[in-house]
Amino acid sequence: MNQKVVTLGEVLMRLTVPNQKRLFQTVNFDVNFGGSEANVGISLAHMGLKNSHITALPHHDLGERVVRFLNMNNVGNEGIVRKDGRLGIYYLECGAMQRPSRIVYDRFDTTFSYLKEDEIDWDAVFEDANWFHYSGITPAISQSVADVTLRALKEAKKRGVKTSGDINYRRNLWQYGKQPLDVMPGLVELTDYVVGGRVDLENCLGIYDDDWSRNCELVLEKYPNIKAFSKSIRDSHSASRNDLTVVMYKDGKLYTSKKYEMNNIVDRIGGGDAFMAGLIYGLLNLNEQQTVEYAVAASVLKHSTIGDVNLSSKEEIMHLVDGDNVGRLLR
Amino acid sequence: MNQKVVTLGEVLMRLTVPNQKRLFQTVNFDVNFGGSEANVGISLAHMGLKNSHITALPHHDLGERVVRFLNMNNVGNEGIVRKDGRLGIYYLECGAMQRPSRIVYDRFDTTFSYLKEDEIDWDAVFEDANWFHYSGITPAISQSVADVTLRALKEAKKRGVKTSGDINYRRNLWQYGKQPLDVMPGLVELTDYVVGGRVDLENCLGIYDDDWSRNCELVLEKYPNIKAFSKSIRDSHSASRNDLTVVMYKDGKLYTSKKYEMNNIVDRIGGGDAFMAGLIYGLLNLNEQQTVEYAVAASVLKHSTIGDVNLSSKEEIMHLVDGDNVGRLLR
Amino acid sequence: MNQKVVTLGEVLMRLTVPNQKRLFQTVNFDVNFGGSEANVGISLAHMGLKNSHITALPHHDLGERVVRFLNMNNVGNEGIVRKDGRLGIYYLECGAMQRPSRIVYDRFDTTFSYLKEDEIDWDAVFEDANWFHYSGITPAISQSVADVTLRALKEAKKRGVKTSGDINYRRNLWQYGKQPLDVMPGLVELTDYVVGGRVDLENCLGIYDDDWSRNCELVLEKYPNIKAFSKSIRDSHSASRNDLTVVMYKDGKLYTSKKYEMNNIVDRIGGGDAFMAGLIYGLLNLNEQQTVEYAVAASVLKHSTIGDVNLSSKEEIMHLVDGDNVGRLLR
Amino acid sequence: MNQKVVTLGEVLMRLTVPNQKRLFQTVNFDVNFGGSEANVGISLAHMGLKNSHITALPHHDLGERVVRFLNMNNVGNEGIVRKDGRLGIYYLECGAMQRPSRIVYDRFDTTFSYLKEDEIDWDAVFEDANWFHYSGITPAISQSVADVTLRALKEAKKRGVKTSGDINYRRNLWQYGKQPLDVMPGLVELTDYVVGGRVDLENCLGIYDDDWSRNCELVLEKYPNIKAFSKSIRDSHSASRNDLTVVMYKDGKLYTSKKYEMNNIVDRIGGGDAFMAGLIYGLLNLNEQQTVEYAVAASVLKHSTIGDVNLSSKEEIMHLVDGDNVGRLLR
Amino acid sequence: MNQKVVTLGEVLMRLTVPNQKRLFQTVNFDVNFGGSEANVGISLAHMGLKNSHITALPHHDLGERVVRFLNMNNVGNEGIVRKDGRLGIYYLECGAMQRPSRIVYDRFDTTFSYLKEDEIDWDAVFEDANWFHYSGITPAISQSVADVTLRALKEAKKRGVKTSGDINYRRNLWQYGKQPLDVMPGLVELTDYVVGGRVDLENCLGIYDDDWSRNCELVLEKYPNIKAFSKSIRDSHSASRNDLTVVMYKDGKLYTSKKYEMNNIVDRIGGGDAFMAGLIYGLLNLNEQQTVEYAVAASVLKHSTIGDVNLSSKEEIMHLVDGDNVGRLLR
Amino acid sequence: MNQKVVTLGEVLMRLTVPNQKRLFQTVNFDVNFGGSEANVGISLAHMGLKNSHITALPHHDLGERVVRFLNMNNVGNEGIVRKDGRLGIYYLECGAMQRPSRIVYDRFDTTFSYLKEDEIDWDAVFEDANWFHYSGITPAISQSVADVTLRALKEAKKRGVKTSGDINYRRNLWQYGKQPLDVMPGLVELTDYVVGGRVDLENCLGIYDDDWSRNCELVLEKYPNIKAFSKSIRDSHSASRNDLTVVMYKDGKLYTSKKYEMNNIVDRIGGGDAFMAGLIYGLLNLNEQQTVEYAVAASVLKHSTIGDVNLSSKEEIMHLVDGDNVGRLLR
Ligand SMILES: [Ca+2]
Ligand SMILES: [Ca+2]
Ligand SMILES: [Ca+2]
Ligand SMILES: [Ca+2]
Ligand SMILES: [Ca+2]
Ligand SMILES: [Ca+2]
Ligand SMILES: [Ca+2]
Ligand SMILES: [Ca+2]
Ligand SMILES: [Ca+2]
Ligand SMILES: [Ca+2]
Ligand SMILES: [Ca+2]
Ligand SMILES: [Ca+2]
Ligand code: NI
Ligand code: NI
Ligand code: NI
Ligand code: NI
Ligand code: NI
Ligand code: NI
Ligand code: NI
Ligand code: NI
Ligand code: NI
Ligand code: NI
Ligand code: NI
Ligand code: NI
Ligand code: NI
Ligand code: NI
Ligand code: NI
Ligand code: NI
Ligand code: NI
Ligand code: NI
Repeated sequence: MNQKVVTLGEVLMRLTVPNQKRLFQTVNFDVNFGGSEANVGISLAHMGLKNSHITALPHHDLGERVVRFLNMNNVGNEGIVRKDGRLGIYYLECGAMQRPSRIVYDRFDTTFSYLKEDEIDWDAVFEDANWFHYSGITPAISQSVADVTLRALKEAKKRGVKTSGDINYRRNLWQYGKQPLDVMPGLVELTDYVVGGRVDLENCLGIYDDDWSRNCELVLEKYPNIKAFSKSIRDSHSASRNDLTVVMYKDGKLYTSKKYEMNNIVDRIGGGDAFMAGLIYGLLNLNEQQTVEYAVAASVLKHSTIGDVNLSSKEEIMHLVDGDNVGRLLR
Repeated sequence: MNQKVVTLGEVLMRLTVPNQKRLFQTVNFDVNFGGSEANVGISLAHMGLKNSHITALPHHDLGERVVRFLNMNNVGNEGIVRKDGRLGIYYLECGAMQRPSRIVYDRFDTTFSYLKEDEIDWDAVFEDANWFHYSGITPAISQSVADVTLRALKEAKKRGVKTSGDINYRRNLWQYGKQPLDVMPGLVELTDYVVGGRVDLENCLGIYDDDWSRNCELVLEKYPNIKAFSKSIRDSHSASRNDLTVVMYKDGKLYTSKKYEMNNIVDRIGGGDAFMAGLIYGLLNLNEQQTVEYAVAASVLKHSTIGDVNLSSKEEIMHLVDGDNVGRLLR
Repeated sequence: MNQKVVTLGEVLMRLTVPNQKRLFQTVNFDVNFGGSEANVGISLAHMGLKNSHITALPHHDLGERVVRFLNMNNVGNEGIVRKDGRLGIYYLECGAMQRPSRIVYDRFDTTFSYLKEDEIDWDAVFEDANWFHYSGITPAISQSVADVTLRALKEAKKRGVKTSGDINYRRNLWQYGKQPLDVMPGLVELTDYVVGGRVDLENCLGIYDDDWSRNCELVLEKYPNIKAFSKSIRDSHSASRNDLTVVMYKDGKLYTSKKYEMNNIVDRIGGGDAFMAGLIYGLLNLNEQQTVEYAVAASVLKHSTIGDVNLSSKEEIMHLVDGDNVGRLLR
Repeated sequence: MNQKVVTLGEVLMRLTVPNQKRLFQTVNFDVNFGGSEANVGISLAHMGLKNSHITALPHHDLGERVVRFLNMNNVGNEGIVRKDGRLGIYYLECGAMQRPSRIVYDRFDTTFSYLKEDEIDWDAVFEDANWFHYSGITPAISQSVADVTLRALKEAKKRGVKTSGDINYRRNLWQYGKQPLDVMPGLVELTDYVVGGRVDLENCLGIYDDDWSRNCELVLEKYPNIKAFSKSIRDSHSASRNDLTVVMYKDGKLYTSKKYEMNNIVDRIGGGDAFMAGLIYGLLNLNEQQTVEYAVAASVLKHSTIGDVNLSSKEEIMHLVDGDNVGRLLR
Repeated sequence: MNQKVVTLGEVLMRLTVPNQKRLFQTVNFDVNFGGSEANVGISLAHMGLKNSHITALPHHDLGERVVRFLNMNNVGNEGIVRKDGRLGIYYLECGAMQRPSRIVYDRFDTTFSYLKEDEIDWDAVFEDANWFHYSGITPAISQSVADVTLRALKEAKKRGVKTSGDINYRRNLWQYGKQPLDVMPGLVELTDYVVGGRVDLENCLGIYDDDWSRNCELVLEKYPNIKAFSKSIRDSHSASRNDLTVVMYKDGKLYTSKKYEMNNIVDRIGGGDAFMAGLIYGLLNLNEQQTVEYAVAASVLKHSTIGDVNLSSKEEIMHLVDGDNVGRLLR
Repeated sequence: MNQKVVTLGEVLMRLTVPNQKRLFQTVNFDVNFGGSEANVGISLAHMGLKNSHITALPHHDLGERVVRFLNMNNVGNEGIVRKDGRLGIYYLECGAMQRPSRIVYDRFDTTFSYLKEDEIDWDAVFEDANWFHYSGITPAISQSVADVTLRALKEAKKRGVKTSGDINYRRNLWQYGKQPLDVMPGLVELTDYVVGGRVDLENCLGIYDDDWSRNCELVLEKYPNIKAFSKSIRDSHSASRNDLTVVMYKDGKLYTSKKYEMNNIVDRIGGGDAFMAGLIYGLLNLNEQQTVEYAVAASVLKHSTIGDVNLSSKEEIMHLVDGDNVGRLLR
């Protein structure tokens, strides 16, 4: 395979309370790294694509820790800017049974929030690229990185690179003066493939309808540049049991995947990003129905994996799509 | 909130075999602390009440460890007596699937068993108290702490403090010469709110009937001082799957909670004490139906928590009663 | 009880990736030991039988580690040969949800593969023995240990010791020049009790029929020496949920056990060996229906236990057969 | 004992890279809490004094974690303000041999930096207090907490409470516009007992002389309010071997402690704060020579203890001063 | 080698606070097992001797844990009595630098204290035995096990088995009514080889002299049955640095070993028992000077080993005596 | 910096017994990776050079684990060949005090031993290279990799790339029919910079003289192509205390570094490879005396670091050469 995806976004350190303890009890933390867009890039790298991730990281040794995490997962260094500042953090308390999981964020004023357009070597990053992906989290962080997002979309378009955006509305961000409706429409106009749910559509694009198909139509009417619109549907019974389906609206048709029953969930963080990566892979390599099946299977396998990132290979995801190997012991 | 509950009972060290190993294999232990009544007091402290716990602990640094555990959980020191002796222990082997959990006790001749009435500063302990709670475990340990229990009930009554008792029959205790029927009726006569199941009723109060409502009536006929009589009903499918309901008989009426299906149980020890704490909270602050719903939800959340103690806040329990947040990721 | 079982087979070191990580991420390994036939012997030792295990182990301290493992589990030293060489290894990545478990073997050219007939003190090993058990794994490893297997069967027959074989076909072994059909029939002719599934029968004995009862008849027609033929049936829904049943064909009749639903599986490795041990125990001590019930319950309890070996006592298995204690907290 | 010390300062979360790894390698963190002044207060609590610590902590569950840490160590809650914001963090990479230890700070814009004078209940905090202690770290953080420091000194003076200050110069702080020479002299004028080294004196008070005794004289000439001036002297041979001495200038005389050779250092963080606590204890309870001996022994014992805080009791420190028990096994 | 040593004594569970924490902080324990005499027996088993250990252990699974520990270390089961009761425990807080190690015992009323003479199969235990060893700890526990000790010495003498005793005076034991001077002389009269220091001699035998050689003479004058009298001399600089020498008085001559400087001590518990085992090995197999050198080297290697027991082989100890391999990397 | 070093050699998995246990006790392993030449390459990568490492790794996920290790440490993938086979292993038991460390190797018949000359893309590997390094371990493994070594030296020479060799004699290897004297001289003839001690010289080159300078002269007389000849000198007092010096003979002159006293050694494995990397760095960038000082400081810092590889930066090593920061706490 010779495909390359460029991603843009912050990488946070996740500090997980181990052994099912509560955050107010913790005596240690497990360390992982993730961020919506990096999760997408790394998932695609595990499927065999090249990935160049645009981000900024502190100069100090904890920033170096993140670079090692990215390198280990086959992410190229072209888009990594190192500068002074702090690394964003989030604390994760894992839910269990009827008790929900909880995240405490500590992600303001990070090195990434000060990343500037001209700190990036756009030619190096986009060399041989086929796809660019961003999410609604980055433009919510600061004017500077909102600008970088717009610039990246333009750099992509200039080079004929396909674009996707996960318009992930995050209520607690957007504190730099702009509102989503000020920023997101301008980005979506440059986006070929869009992912979002009801809440995201309403807040970022101002579109709402009770019926999902009608919602999709409204999006495509307003943004005729969009080639497909998709989301995953999660039905949460408890912290350890969810059901998952993926739908994609394309060329006037709604494609619906198989519904997976997920019991004994290991880690749901990044499930949406794994779906996003599966969708990009499918749009590049499979037909529509295969795409939703691949995307939902990718997300299911993420739920069996510790950390924010789906580590499954293309072959493993395909086996699940085909119903092979489930519950087996492979020797 | 300005309510204060006084509790009386032994605090044991729990040594849990980690990593799902058997006790005969163990190379290390996780350390927790608990005891039926302290579990009730600490649960109430996490709901925002004040708690003063009457107990005795060894003078040495392992006794100090328990004091730190209590202080950390907001239990006041007024009722903690330090003297020479040993700390009671129990070893816990965690069950899994069809394999039951197992406890090995090593709790005879402990410091607590030698606690004497006049070692306690009753005025300090009961200052501003609204409620006193004990269980059937303490009077089963020694004549000395059976005497302390009766004295505590009298001190409560003298001050107009409400009283509750969990008449928890423990077959392996009661080795100091008295039988439950010699002791428990005298305590129950001073108790406003009683919790117990069939086995407890039969052994501690000599009451038995096939029909549960009739059982309740018999209890209230014999002990007209009792204002409500309650129990939780556990249906055990395996070590990791139980169902739970709470019933309360009050003013001639049987209130029944919603039934919760508990899958992927994390730790069932102290589930009964969490229910007890929920019941006390409800009786102080809610109506009858709300009380059984709050009590069962408190116990369900305990099952998602490592250790003997329910660490959930009032708000978390209320969210579960209302069906909010279940299986969600709270950011 | 005064029964003694002799077993023959390699003991491998199992290196398990902890904390549900993938093998390509691992920073440490949990260490266990196991091997199909040793698993059977140790399970029987935990049921109260004597066990003498014939194997070869390296001279170095990792070989000593295995001896300590065997001694700790009450296996006698008579059949343990120490010589230069390497210890066989397998790496285990634990599956979760829809993601299968994976084993990577590193078991060629081990000390065991060079074990020779005359290195074993046959008299010491078979002193007071009632039963000899082998599996189809050993004759697949090397000519030398295939010879040891045949010799052991002859030594057993010579002494009137009952024999059993689990004709476990392993496609990746059999690399020393012989094929299963060259070797296994000669061993089965000396075997009283045989365990195997469709794939094993077809590859090792060349017998195949769509109908299982007919399959059993064909086996017994071709090998009239066989007294009973059995297998366990596993229905795998996911890595953490399987169903299990045991069937045994004996004296023209098919005995079928209760079907167990296994949720929250802890460790499925060695489930078949636990069933095998239960079968041997039953054939020595119980009637036919009791035997299949005991064998399936033994295997179910294995699935709740970390490591290759069933550590349950006879009493624990019997309690499960009787439906006692399931999901309880035994104090 | 009936002494009470009030302390003021930020409590940070310390994230330590375990197992002697480098920060850029870490896969988990050990969690401790500390801050120069809280370390002093908690050390004194372990010596039997009461401690009320003035600080601000986030409203969220990680803030609650710190409250539990303080409560567990017998710190009173009167001075703890809870408000929105973030918790300050520092990352610790432990040195070994010739490799130095390294700290990466992430402590700007914390909840504490926004603490305001009128958020504190000064009467509750200073009730029954004998001593107030601050350090040069707090006034370096923000104007708001520099104001709190001055106010606290005035509140102490108003009530006849003795005061001490560790004029700990931290080059990387002081970013809110003021310089140490703008702020520290005003604080030192209200301070009875001052601790500082050459660098601190020069930067905070503008005093410098090659000769230490002369330095002390200059300090006392400029600040005649100061009753004693002290410091510890550390001679660092490697990360695991340091020598330690304490000197105190009082009433025109320089008192010098025994010099301790510290090999196999466990954790040097907070060594200076342990010395400070020992000094306060001594000034309250011992003569001058005993005071320097007690202070250095307290600091030595801190170096044997994981975490920022000295956990030694008064009796343990006294035993070391007396040369008892060193290297023994106490049964 | 065909030597067998019989040992008699309690086996305790040691619960060690890991990670250099204090006992009052602990959140988990490491589990080891040991007891002065079992430590001697197991050390000798690691040197290649046979060992049969006389003890009593609880019937429950924690007792089974100890049996597995003994079996794993090649101790024979002939002398292990299983009965109801509790297992003795000791808590170990590891010292560091100038901070001493601390032990908290919880060893009264254990199963072992109720062991009776006629519960032991003396013929099985002493079959093929060459040596019997006891210590002064056992007769300090209860009249019952003091009687077992005397009986064991008589059984040994009856069979011509050599005897040794470590007259380890433990001030905190001896609570059953007898004093050491009532019991120990009668045991020492049946002992061929005695180990003890000044405090032991004075308390157990009533012998005291400032000069050690004179002390030895007094012992041998009063107990002419004694063939050699020995002790180890420990010079403790800190918890991690001790010096060690062994002396033995035999046939009117004092043999003195090389003095070892022990830095970076890993675990000093059981150092005296390792010396005792080395002494027994030497007395059976080496000349006098070799014996003291072997005994001190055995004890030094114990200090490099976690747990109460010396795990070094004869060859490893001999290499240290010869000065080989020290500080090397053996491939 | 724009220097690039090519290295050739096997990467083994190191399984370390944690917590200072013995190999025969282990219940888990820590996982590291290393190999003499990869250690050199990675050390140089941490100093800022580029590194391309020639090796072969198994196709399976444990091979992938090694690729991730290399990528994380900035090693380029150009020389990594993936093929079927097994990964070489070594087990490490860490010594302590007078007890030596022990390695058990399991490294025969590995994937690397079957690496063939024409599987390597020599142009890609040597693109922009300045230096090629090998050791005497690779030609000792198999004829195939001995051939690869010679070919690599020729490829280097052909391109004007400088070469170095560490003629590390390993007695237990060399089992494929050739002896060191058959192979090593032919390699040394193509080597510019050689490292070796007495044993290596005697076995690999047949050169021996009591006097080290004379030894050096003999080497340079026989191999006039050699530009410098060096070694490190280790004086081992115990497992945790060694002294270290580096000497280099160049242009008729012997340069000797400062001697470092290394106490509290963390991990000595790879100390020689860290020295080798320091030497290469110095030869490329420093004068002779600076080179030996840099090389010894690099090796000292390795001893403070867990794992086979020196992770120190050029700046950290230079600070140690200058005596800065030793024993400090860098904030
Ligand atoms: Ca890769
Ligand atoms: Ca997401
Ligand atoms: Ca609190
Ligand atoms: Ca209960
Ligand atoms: Ca046993
Ligand atoms: Ca099997
Ligand atoms: Ca306290
Ligand atoms: Ca300080
Ligand atoms: Ca053995
Ligand atoms: Ca001892
Ligand atoms: Ca890098
Ligand atoms: Ca080397
Ligand atoms: Ni910078
Ligand atoms: Ni559903
Ligand atoms: Ni496949
Ligand atoms: Ni006391
Ligand atoms: Ni049910
Ligand atoms: Ni809420
Ligand atoms: Ni050998
Ligand atoms: Ni099913
Ligand atoms: Ni039973
Ligand atoms: Ni708030
Ligand atoms: Ni010094
Ligand atoms: Ni004392
Ligand atoms: Ni019993
Ligand atoms: Ni000394
Ligand atoms: Ni040797
Ligand atoms: Ni392949
Ligand atoms: Ni030296
Ligand atoms: Ni620097």
